[in-house]
Amino acid sequence: MPTRQKFLKKRSIKSGMPPGSLVHIGEERAEAAQISIIAYDATALEEQSLPKIGKHLPSCINPTGVTWINVEGVHDVEIVRALGEHFSFHPLVMEDIVNTVQRPKIEDYGEYLFIVMRMLRPQHEADFSSEQLSMIVGPNYLLTFQEGIKGDVFDAVRERIRTSKGKIRALGTDYLCYSLIDAIVDSYFSVLEELGEHIVDVEEELTLTPGRETLHRISYLKKEIIFLRRAVWPLREAISFLERGDSHLLSDATRVYYRDIYDHTVQVMDTVETYRDLLAGMLDLYLSSVSNRMNEIMKFLTVVGMIFLPLTFLVGVYGMNFKNMPELEWHYGYYALWAVMIVLSLGMVAFFRKKKWL
Amino acid sequence: MPTRQKFLKKRSIKSGMPPGSLVHIGEERAEAAQISIIAYDATALEEQSLPKIGKHLPSCINPTGVTWINVEGVHDVEIVRALGEHFSFHPLVMEDIVNTVQRPKIEDYGEYLFIVMRMLRPQHEADFSSEQLSMIVGPNYLLTFQEGIKGDVFDAVRERIRTSKGKIRALGTDYLCYSLIDAIVDSYFSVLEELGEHIVDVEEELTLTPGRETLHRISYLKKEIIFLRRAVWPLREAISFLERGDSHLLSDATRVYYRDIYDHTVQVMDTVETYRDLLAGMLDLYLSSVSNRMNEIMKFLTVVGMIFLPLTFLVGVYGMNFKNMPELEWHYGYYALWAVMIVLSLGMVAFFRKKKWL
Amino acid sequence: MPTRQKFLKKRSIKSGMPPGSLVHIGEERAEAAQISIIAYDATALEEQSLPKIGKHLPSCINPTGVTWINVEGVHDVEIVRALGEHFSFHPLVMEDIVNTVQRPKIEDYGEYLFIVMRMLRPQHEADFSSEQLSMIVGPNYLLTFQEGIKGDVFDAVRERIRTSKGKIRALGTDYLCYSLIDAIVDSYFSVLEELGEHIVDVEEELTLTPGRETLHRISYLKKEIIFLRRAVWPLREAISFLERGDSHLLSDATRVYYRDIYDHTVQVMDTVETYRDLLAGMLDLYLSSVSNRMNEIMKFLTVVGMIFLPLTFLVGVYGMNFKNMPELEWHYGYYALWAVMIVLSLGMVAFFRKKKWL
Amino acid sequence: MPTRQKFLKKRSIKSGMPPGSLVHIGEERAEAAQISIIAYDATALEEQSLPKIGKHLPSCINPTGVTWINVEGVHDVEIVRALGEHFSFHPLVMEDIVNTVQRPKIEDYGEYLFIVMRMLRPQHEADFSSEQLSMIVGPNYLLTFQEGIKGDVFDAVRERIRTSKGKIRALGTDYLCYSLIDAIVDSYFSVLEELGEHIVDVEEELTLTPGRETLHRISYLKKEIIFLRRAVWPLREAISFLERGDSHLLSDATRVYYRDIYDHTVQVMDTVETYRDLLAGMLDLYLSSVSNRMNEIMKFLTVVGMIFLPLTFLVGVYGMNFKNMPELEWHYGYYALWAVMIVLSLGMVAFFRKKKWL
Amino acid sequence: MPTRQKFLKKRSIKSGMPPGSLVHIGEERAEAAQISIIAYDATALEEQSLPKIGKHLPSCINPTGVTWINVEGVHDVEIVRALGEHFSFHPLVMEDIVNTVQRPKIEDYGEYLFIVMRMLRPQHEADFSSEQLSMIVGPNYLLTFQEGIKGDVFDAVRERIRTSKGKIRALGTDYLCYSLIDAIVDSYFSVLEELGEHIVDVEEELTLTPGRETLHRISYLKKEIIFLRRAVWPLREAISFLERGDSHLLSDATRVYYRDIYDHTVQVMDTVETYRDLLAGMLDLYLSSVSNRMNEIMKFLTVVGMIFLPLTFLVGVYGMNFKNMPELEWHYGYYALWAVMIVLSLGMVAFFRKKKWL
Repeated sequence: MPTRQKFLKKRSIKSGMPPGSLVHIGEERAEAAQISIIAYDATALEEQSLPKIGKHLPSCINPTGVTWINVEGVHDVEIVRALGEHFSFHPLVMEDIVNTVQRPKIEDYGEYLFIVMRMLRPQHEADFSSEQLSMIVGPNYLLTFQEGIKGDVFDAVRERIRTSKGKIRALGTDYLCYSLIDAIVDSYFSVLEELGEHIVDVEEELTLTPGRETLHRISYLKKEIIFLRRAVWPLREAISFLERGDSHLLSDATRVYYRDIYDHTVQVMDTVETYRDLLAGMLDLYLSSVSNRMNEIMKFLTVVGMIFLPLTFLVGVYGMNFKNMPELEWHYGYYALWAVMIVLSLGMVAFFRKKKWL
Repeated sequence: MPTRQKFLKKRSIKSGMPPGSLVHIGEERAEAAQISIIAYDATALEEQSLPKIGKHLPSCINPTGVTWINVEGVHDVEIVRALGEHFSFHPLVMEDIVNTVQRPKIEDYGEYLFIVMRMLRPQHEADFSSEQLSMIVGPNYLLTFQEGIKGDVFDAVRERIRTSKGKIRALGTDYLCYSLIDAIVDSYFSVLEELGEHIVDVEEELTLTPGRETLHRISYLKKEIIFLRRAVWPLREAISFLERGDSHLLSDATRVYYRDIYDHTVQVMDTVETYRDLLAGMLDLYLSSVSNRMNEIMKFLTVVGMIFLPLTFLVGVYGMNFKNMPELEWHYGYYALWAVMIVLSLGMVAFFRKKKWL
Repeated sequence: MPTRQKFLKKRSIKSGMPPGSLVHIGEERAEAAQISIIAYDATALEEQSLPKIGKHLPSCINPTGVTWINVEGVHDVEIVRALGEHFSFHPLVMEDIVNTVQRPKIEDYGEYLFIVMRMLRPQHEADFSSEQLSMIVGPNYLLTFQEGIKGDVFDAVRERIRTSKGKIRALGTDYLCYSLIDAIVDSYFSVLEELGEHIVDVEEELTLTPGRETLHRISYLKKEIIFLRRAVWPLREAISFLERGDSHLLSDATRVYYRDIYDHTVQVMDTVETYRDLLAGMLDLYLSSVSNRMNEIMKFLTVVGMIFLPLTFLVGVYGMNFKNMPELEWHYGYYALWAVMIVLSLGMVAFFRKKKWL
Repeated sequence: MPTRQKFLKKRSIKSGMPPGSLVHIGEERAEAAQISIIAYDATALEEQSLPKIGKHLPSCINPTGVTWINVEGVHDVEIVRALGEHFSFHPLVMEDIVNTVQRPKIEDYGEYLFIVMRMLRPQHEADFSSEQLSMIVGPNYLLTFQEGIKGDVFDAVRERIRTSKGKIRALGTDYLCYSLIDAIVDSYFSVLEELGEHIVDVEEELTLTPGRETLHRISYLKKEIIFLRRAVWPLREAISFLERGDSHLLSDATRVYYRDIYDHTVQVMDTVETYRDLLAGMLDLYLSSVSNRMNEIMKFLTVVGMIFLPLTFLVGVYGMNFKNMPELEWHYGYYALWAVMIVLSLGMVAFFRKKKWL
Repeated sequence: MPTRQKFLKKRSIKSGMPPGSLVHIGEERAEAAQISIIAYDATALEEQSLPKIGKHLPSCINPTGVTWINVEGVHDVEIVRALGEHFSFHPLVMEDIVNTVQRPKIEDYGEYLFIVMRMLRPQHEADFSSEQLSMIVGPNYLLTFQEGIKGDVFDAVRERIRTSKGKIRALGTDYLCYSLIDAIVDSYFSVLEELGEHIVDVEEELTLTPGRETLHRISYLKKEIIFLRRAVWPLREAISFLERGDSHLLSDATRVYYRDIYDHTVQVMDTVETYRDLLAGMLDLYLSSVSNRMNEIMKFLTVVGMIFLPLTFLVGVYGMNFKNMPELEWHYGYYALWAVMIVLSLGMVAFFRKKKWL
């Protein structure tokens, strides 16, 4: 929860600044940012990793191939600014990159596309972290800006570029863009599977040993679903833009791939909705079960209590001190009373059994 | 539930692979896959059944007629790959066929249509299995890929082809495609009727002998409805594409048939929604009934208990050991007290009756 | 409910048949079907009633006027087949006529329109029966197929044709079609008024004497509303097609009439929704009332029980057999204890009154 | 409620009549209808009031100005018929005027517009009456038909016409129509404010002295909101037609005014929705409060009862008649027992306090 | 709440007035209104502050630059009238400015745009005030009318104009308009953060020490969300108009900025919806927790009470006065009974423990 708390609070510090002000909004980090550059075409590949932006940036841009610049840690505002100025990006784009509380979206700036997504990472106990990934797709360059520096889900893509596996080296930035988005959407399934595992666990717990913590787990998972929907829902609309292929940066050949991720996104949403419905049903079931169980206990106890009421009354009667109480004098009075009480108890048990109250 | 559990978990093993990687995602099976081929035109019919794809595949494709290739068991990835390469299908199509967690959908690849549906099969106790059926409709061929190998709902269609019943032999792949989809949608009605039967059962149980298991049955049926909606809902959109007939593979003559299945799909959805509403009403009714019944019992017991309270108090009074208690000395004291207690009890019963508490 | 049960179950017997198979799906009936024909134009009128279709059917079709053929009882599949072949209707149309579980819909077949509606009939206790009415509207003929044979709501229309009241004799099949649909939609208001009456009854019952059967009545009415919505909701869309007048069979002059029935349909839906909202509110109110009333009783009883607790304790104290208990020896001990107990009881009553618990 | 009851029941008496039949459907009234005519242009004004339609109607129509004919009491079907025939209105229009259960709507008949609205009037105790107002807007005439005869909300408009205040005398029927609709929509705010006042009252009652009648008041207000939505919701769509100005009867100059009423209608809907949300929240709060309060009482009583249980047991022990009970013989036994009981009680009170149960 | 109460009640006082009547509707204020004027272009800047509108207004309008006239306090209707007449605004615009219960909206009057928004201001305890801000954007002037006079959120914009920071001095009224709307939408985040803080607080309270006031706090926050949605929801639609840039007053260069605020507005709505979902979950959790806790206590008490029932019965038995009760004569009878009672109690405790009732 502490993360959420922070997440719900940061934005207003920028109130009153002119648009395009580069102020980092997000979790504070002490670690240094990292820049890595991969430039490739069908035949050649060059890789660099550097902590700061110096003068040699232009040299690595391959005019006929693709240059992918990946920045880990947007809290280092200077790197973002340097890159922004080098490529002449719009100030609002730069602002959105460092302001890491954006919703997923896509914006078409003519010469380049600006895409914002959320990179989800499963954490202990059904929790997941949500970091912003901003992407700028130009004709021969692609920039990715990651909020965090704890690694990403792109290693497989890098490997494919390096080993020239698949068509990735032969195609342009739009295919690279697809590969990266695909990697992110694929990683959503891990989060979903983690969540699904917990939901199935809680469901079993619900059947076998429902307790107070079951309620809290259901409630916790429902909250996770709320946050997950928020991260994923707007993505569908954004990817539908890519699928339509309205921008000249998107070749027709990759449209079918974007349709594929669109499909995956819809599947993610579908699963999220199913989880939500399942959790709602589980909450109902939990509440009814608990109430049923409670009722059963109370009924049992009340019924048992009921059996003792007339017995206690009877022994009270023969504890009275009236001078003239013939039964007390009778030699078998005590035994007779026990007989009466036993018959009475059995009769009541039979009656309650018949009524299905016991 | 174990199936569901698996169903919720498989997808991520493919993370990081390039698009078009043929990895089977779904239930593991030990049985061998089966291929069956039916090639026909208005006058001729040829049938073959083979366990592997060899060289003689091309020969059976009838350029003027229709060739229907049915694959049972997509876990044998090699068969899918061989067919895919033979017909030059897009890698993403091949990938979706072996990845059996797709949503129902239709995709137009120009030269062929790719259709994914769910084949539902009623199982014991209102449960149903859900297997993926992928279909590729080309100008003179139609391929169906079934996830499972336990038989399908197409026997009636095969019989019609063999006996040349109806117009099926005279028409092209679009009519065959219609016949197959129709068979699947028809089979949904069996699942619905099975479910409906259970719902009516549970409703009767609810009226006659509601118990804890009633709650679990309602809850179970609600869960079934959630999964059923998920399998059926996207189908409507897909079939609406076929009804519109935007592809050149669909002749105008079959449009009216597609409108018919569209209608059926809407009816399926309608019934699913009605079931959902009925189950929601049943849950409400169950909870209110149980709570009502519980309340009645508690009220009865409390009211009866209330009658004994003053009586027990009274016998307590005359069990006291005060030296000077005139009533105790009175010869008829004991009988008088009984009279008082009987009158008091009857008065209380009358009072509670009047108040409608008893 | 038995009807519903059947209604939820029939469809699958047709699985595997080719499209256009004429198999009656619906309630079984022993009675013979009836055919009645009315042929008219502005000046002439001819009426016939016959139990079977023979050869003289063509002769009665009036090429310049309107021929209305009404079939009561579609379980006689042969009649439907004969008419279908005579007019060359599409096999799917014939199939939908005898398969009486269709949703309301309209289909434009170019030369004729095919309309399916539900004919509702109030029955005892807020229940209503729902029978399928299929209608085929051609340039100079109109066919109606009724599921049942217990009479219909068209008598007023027939009377208007016979007496040439209104414009009906002067206008074509589209106006006749309007008149028939209007009669059906008008009859929905009877069902609604019947339901409304019951809802108002239950509401009064809820205020005056809520009991267990109140809950069941509300629940029953809610179920009726679910089925009513299902019969009426799709009609709106169908009639909106007629209002738009896209078919050449619909003259501009009748469009304003179709707008009128569209209006009525919307009113029907509106009323159904209002009923649903009212019933939802009534269920909430019932549950809260019952729970409130229960709570009041339990509180009363518990509070009264509370008064006896210290009294019973006190008389217990003086029932002890200690050798040395000075109070027991005191001559006024017994009376003093009574005084104490009375004061204590009154004090507790006052306390509970003040707390508003009594 | 009696009004509602009637309102829910009238419609079916017209079943089977041909379209355009003039049968009054609505509350029966004994009072005579009233006709009032105002004819004006920028310079002249003529006013008449008459109980019946005679021959002089045409003379008062001002071909260059505006003639507003207002009929109060549509139960006098003859007046409606006479006017309808004079202006040659469509029979369906006439029918809708006397059938006072229409939804708000607008219909464009080319030469004139037909508008139906609901005139709401606050009544005692948050109730409101809902009467139908039909309006026909022609090129130089405007007819209004009011269901009731208890006065209307148009006095201010009449006054403006008489005193030539604002632009009303200079503009045509579309501006008059606007002024009348505006007056009606403005009157909705009175109803809303009345309702709002009651909602705020009930909210205060809920905080200070919630009781059974609070529940009934909330439930009553919810029902009012259901009826209010039904009267207002369809109006938005109708006024949006006027705002779009598709008819030649609407000049461009008045479009901005219609946008203004559209705005007001949206505000009305907005407020209705807010009320609905507030009432839903209040119902939740009421139920939780009542249940909380009940629980507190029951807990208190049970805890107190718990203290007496061991005490009563103890005094029971020393009321036994065993021969050999050393404590009874001890001189200070009685006092010692009191000491034990007091310590025990205090201990239990402390324990329950610590557990926050007391 | 008192503010809300007023807010729900004012509107009807204007019923019957002609359109364009300038009557202030809103909170009454004693303070004088204030007018401040800033006229600037890229090179020059002039500022004035005046309490009344005199003759020198025209002189300050800079035909080539931008003149921003800000009015604080629209209760001074004369100022609004003077400005309206000077610029020839439509009477309905003037009316909406002084009638401070408008929904957010945008209206295009050709020569100028009229925009209404709500200025939210956090107040003590999660409350916020909501004041109307009306804005009129012309080709070279921009007027803002604030309902209140307690300062605004525009100081940062003023500072940017004065210091010529950013592009604001170089661009026209559309950019100024953007800057002002941006400042308002930014201020919504403060309100949201304030609310979020309270929601997190209440959530912690819910986990640690849930009590009656928790319920009231949740209910209060839900009410705040209802009002917040009402203020923000319509804004999205209005800003989407600006983003589309349909008016000639909006240059293409600023469209990207409007897209930015559109984004922010969607984020605001998103957060509001998330809050709503969280609060709904919290209410559920609260109710279940309270009910769970209550049940635990009642169960504990009932179970403990159950242990004393047989014990009290037993001591009652040996308190009876039968002549012939052998146990009483037995020398160890008393001790034996104690032994029996202790064993019985322990047995019951063990039984209840096993059943998980204790």
